Amino acid sequence: MRIARVLETCLYADDLAACTDFYERVLGLEVYSQVAGRHVFFRCGDTMFLLFNPAATQQATGPVPPHGAHGQGHVAFAVRQVELPQWRDRLQHSGVAIEAEVTWPSGGQSLYLRDPAGNSVELTTPGIWKLAEPADS
Amino acid sequence: MRIARVLETCLYADDLAACTDFYERVLGLEVYSQVAGRHVFFRCGDTMFLLFNPAATQQATGPVPPHGAHGQGHVAFAVRQVELPQWRDRLQHSGVAIEAEVTWPSGGQSLYLRDPAGNSVELTTPGIWKLAEPADS
Repeated sequence: MRIARVLETCLYADDLAACTDFYERVLGLEVYSQVAGRHVFFRCGDTMFLLFNPAATQQATGPVPPHGAHGQGHVAFAVRQVELPQWRDRLQHSGVAIEAEVTWPSGGQSLYLRDPAGNSVELTTPGIWKLAEPADS
Repeated sequence: MRIARVLETCLYADDLAACTDFYERVLGLEVYSQVAGRHVFFRCGDTMFLLFNPAATQQATGPVPPHGAHGQGHVAFAVRQVELPQWRDRLQHSGVAIEAEVTWPSGGQSLYLRDPAGNSVELTTPGIWKLAEPADS
């Protein structure tokens, strides 16, 4: 008996519309479902990326326990090393600044940006954790 | 060019030691690396679960941009449907309360608990997102 993987990853944003545009248009994620003012859920390979408005989810409504955080969260998405130049181009063309770029001593690279809510978003190669590169897009 | 999956999922906790014990002993995650007072990183299948002390990561030190959140974050881990009874047993024996249990209309089940920092932790079957069950443990 073991946990297989992380299935749902959450970040919080007061302005869901601005963030939805960022994750959909700039990062190319696919919206799975949404409830205006409460959440936007994205499918991302075999994981789910969930964006919540904490003002809504901190209220106890329905069977799901309340949650909600404030501040700058962090998420990293797996990308292919060979596609990093294309990601740099896309970010530049979208007007999204690269806040930092790190080449890790153990191998692999990370680009750091901010979503419109100020969360720290990383595009990185799984090799930084000694995990395999994603298959071809 | 596309994002393959979420690679790093983060939660925040002021008391890393208490949380480390919870994720390691109760949930069975494997510690990958840690820096006392700053972070504990867990490997979880082909994803990474990162626990940070926001008091440390909100400081800008080194090349990685600062981040850090306060409040009750949320994470969901993928488990096998057939193993849910064993998970209930382990939680009971570990003295961890199940805050809620949800059977989803579209199929699948979730158990909700709290980590020592108050984060909402879900053990769930990937079928709730129409994703495949994990392979045998």
